[in-house]
Amino acid sequence: METLSENACFGGVQGVYRHASAACSCDMTFGLFLPAEAADGPVPVLWYLSGLTCTHENAMTKAAAQGWAAEQGIALVFPDTSPRGEDVADHDDYDLGQGAGFYVNATQDPWAPHFRMWDYVAEELPALLAAEFAIDGERQAITGHSMGGHGALTLAMTLPGRYRSVSAFAPICNPTGSDWGRKQLSAYLGNDEGAWARHDASALMRETGFEGPILIDTGTKDQFIDLLRPEALATAIAERRQQAVMRMQPGYDHSYFFVSSFIEDHVEFHAERLWA
Amino acid sequence: METLSENACFGGVQGVYRHASAACSCDMTFGLFLPAEAADGPVPVLWYLSGLTCTHENAMTKAAAQGWAAEQGIALVFPDTSPRGEDVADHDDYDLGQGAGFYVNATQDPWAPHFRMWDYVAEELPALLAAEFAIDGERQAITGHSMGGHGALTLAMTLPGRYRSVSAFAPICNPTGSDWGRKQLSAYLGNDEGAWARHDASALMRETGFEGPILIDTGTKDQFIDLLRPEALATAIAERRQQAVMRMQPGYDHSYFFVSSFIEDHVEFHAERLWA
Repeated sequence: METLSENACFGGVQGVYRHASAACSCDMTFGLFLPAEAADGPVPVLWYLSGLTCTHENAMTKAAAQGWAAEQGIALVFPDTSPRGEDVADHDDYDLGQGAGFYVNATQDPWAPHFRMWDYVAEELPALLAAEFAIDGERQAITGHSMGGHGALTLAMTLPGRYRSVSAFAPICNPTGSDWGRKQLSAYLGNDEGAWARHDASALMRETGFEGPILIDTGTKDQFIDLLRPEALATAIAERRQQAVMRMQPGYDHSYFFVSSFIEDHVEFHAERLWA
Repeated sequence: METLSENACFGGVQGVYRHASAACSCDMTFGLFLPAEAADGPVPVLWYLSGLTCTHENAMTKAAAQGWAAEQGIALVFPDTSPRGEDVADHDDYDLGQGAGFYVNATQDPWAPHFRMWDYVAEELPALLAAEFAIDGERQAITGHSMGGHGALTLAMTLPGRYRSVSAFAPICNPTGSDWGRKQLSAYLGNDEGAWARHDASALMRETGFEGPILIDTGTKDQFIDLLRPEALATAIAERRQQAVMRMQPGYDHSYFFVSSFIEDHVEFHAERLWA
């Protein structure tokens, strides 16, 4: 593992690291904020999964999460959104290929050799963090934005016991019923729609739900709201009687101005469970 | 004036606007955060002047200032750092020409026709804000980062009564004694060093000082600290018996991870004076 940068930040350290990923068969870069308390021993961690076109860097520089994480004494990890590199398949569209991994393990060519973001986020990167940093693997929570909200929700419902809480900003809620989903799931997983359902938060909510609390914020003026389909997840949550808070925030859009406006609430929401 | 974007942000609006600038003889773009209170009438304003290579956008997306400004009910304005455009002179070096206006009125060719950032920030943009937005011109304060800290300090000391308070993050403190200054002042103002002194915060501190409070943060690990010369300003402040707080922050560097770590303090510092 290589240290690309480390900056003092809110009494802790915002680092950026690169490592050879076995899951993705390429070098992967991630950001990690460690609060001051990490100098004395393992701290809880909140995962932040980013959206389409993002790298590890967007949320790290724009979400304004570190100050709240420092206040709560928790770490933040910012994975990249796909494998990267000249040898890695890509597509001219912004929403397919590099920057658009969709948090699945691709089974179809040309994506299958590298696009294994599910395994990367669920298995490889947690193991690396536990081995290399003062991270308490027993205290994990997860959030994300847009495609990353989709990833956070599907990971949380698929890995019971892993995350104590899950939240999302403007998540893609029902990819099997949206152009933000059908396109990518067919490319990465093939045309058998049966294989798609385990990557659809609304379907997973109907089937299994989540054992902990859920917090979801979406802006009423989100320019992509028809693609996000919050109504599908809201219906599934209500029908399941799932513990959850879904907030439609008046006037907010899909940008990081929206994310940063509510990140304090999300960090506090997770910290309450992480320190319980 | 043209609206380039408006995003809901912490209950207010983060806007970006473009207008034909008479001072700079080109189109200029700026960011403006208005808190919710601006819907009911004029609010105080804190100016944020950015550093070398920055546009109106860097602090707007990375400084995490809006949440604190919203809490205090004050506006934030983020001017660009120079004139822009194909017709505007430029230089291959990152620290001269576009993105490096240094908050002076250039008198030398090829810079003189457009590089009038002093007039732009001191006169034209305040008048535009007062005319177009709910900004209380009687309640202004100013801050900045690096070259923008230099601009904030020199404007504040040169325009008594204009700003109630001034602060800076890692400011260029003594440009007449630094390669971050001598190069630009000679290019923009010519070789008569007598004309430079009114753009040197340490010289102005020795001559005039500031009638209000001053807050300055600099990181002990700032990679540019030898160019900033905080010791020159610290000496001038001490010798003048100027009201001021100068903090050397252990471990911090020159980045926005440093700025965002202390922006809460700066916004609160200014708000106390703006609402007095």
